[in-house]
Amino acid sequence: MTDRSDATMKPAPRLNIVTLGVADLARARAFYEDGLGWPVSPASQGDIVFIQLGAVVLSLHPRAALAADATVSDKGAGFAGITLAHNVRDKADVAAVLRAAEAAGGRIVKPAQDAHWGGHSGYFADPDGHLWEVAWNPFIPLDADGALRLP
Amino acid sequence: MTDRSDATMKPAPRLNIVTLGVADLARARAFYEDGLGWPVSPASQGDIVFIQLGAVVLSLHPRAALAADATVSDKGAGFAGITLAHNVRDKADVAAVLRAAEAAGGRIVKPAQDAHWGGHSGYFADPDGHLWEVAWNPFIPLDADGALRLP
Repeated sequence: MTDRSDATMKPAPRLNIVTLGVADLARARAFYEDGLGWPVSPASQGDIVFIQLGAVVLSLHPRAALAADATVSDKGAGFAGITLAHNVRDKADVAAVLRAAEAAGGRIVKPAQDAHWGGHSGYFADPDGHLWEVAWNPFIPLDADGALRLP
Repeated sequence: MTDRSDATMKPAPRLNIVTLGVADLARARAFYEDGLGWPVSPASQGDIVFIQLGAVVLSLHPRAALAADATVSDKGAGFAGITLAHNVRDKADVAAVLRAAEAAGGRIVKPAQDAHWGGHSGYFADPDGHLWEVAWNPFIPLDADGALRLP
């Protein structure tokens, strides 16, 4: 794991922040903070909301501002081509998390069901349509910190 | 932190997997594995590639199959509304990581530059257009494990 800034540098395998572009920051914050009950960090400021999810940070930011920061057009619609996954410790928790997301103002996209790979999962969309899979994987249990550590 | 499956359940604050839908799985794998040098997990199988990034897992999966798994249309174009961030320990590493991504077959979308919030950052797109910000944040250094832990 090196951070050497030479021409042949290989970046450390690292993902620190996932930023969701949102149409209405107050609505998005309410979904995650009040609805799901995920604590908002005091490091949040202005139009950026930070939520610590284990070792990674979820960030909420107005969609247009996010596109502008990346210097790309914010035009875009349909399937984003990215999904997030929230793994649970017990099979029955898949349906419970989907219900919690729905109660918080999300939408159940795929009800909890057995998956072809031997697990149990479903999907919800947050108020901006960002897709979260909720999954129970009996083959790779979460560690004590709630992290999924592959073999 | 509770996983109780009752009606008032609040899900644990947890993000375990980020899955990128890709047009060409071999090309995407080559970008991350050979280009960036990020080890592919032996837990990968069939048309799913897993890469452990600290406590979170990056997954690569054919875009159409990902949409089908979520039971949504795979139609979609333009800005996805989601960005990922890779934080670095030194300011000069922002440009170095962008160069490494470009050498690996990615595209520099925003060259390394000082940011209005006091850091230094840029963006690259992977071969499928997924946007990664590379950022140096002098206010919140990475911990020993490479994780960003907010105040």
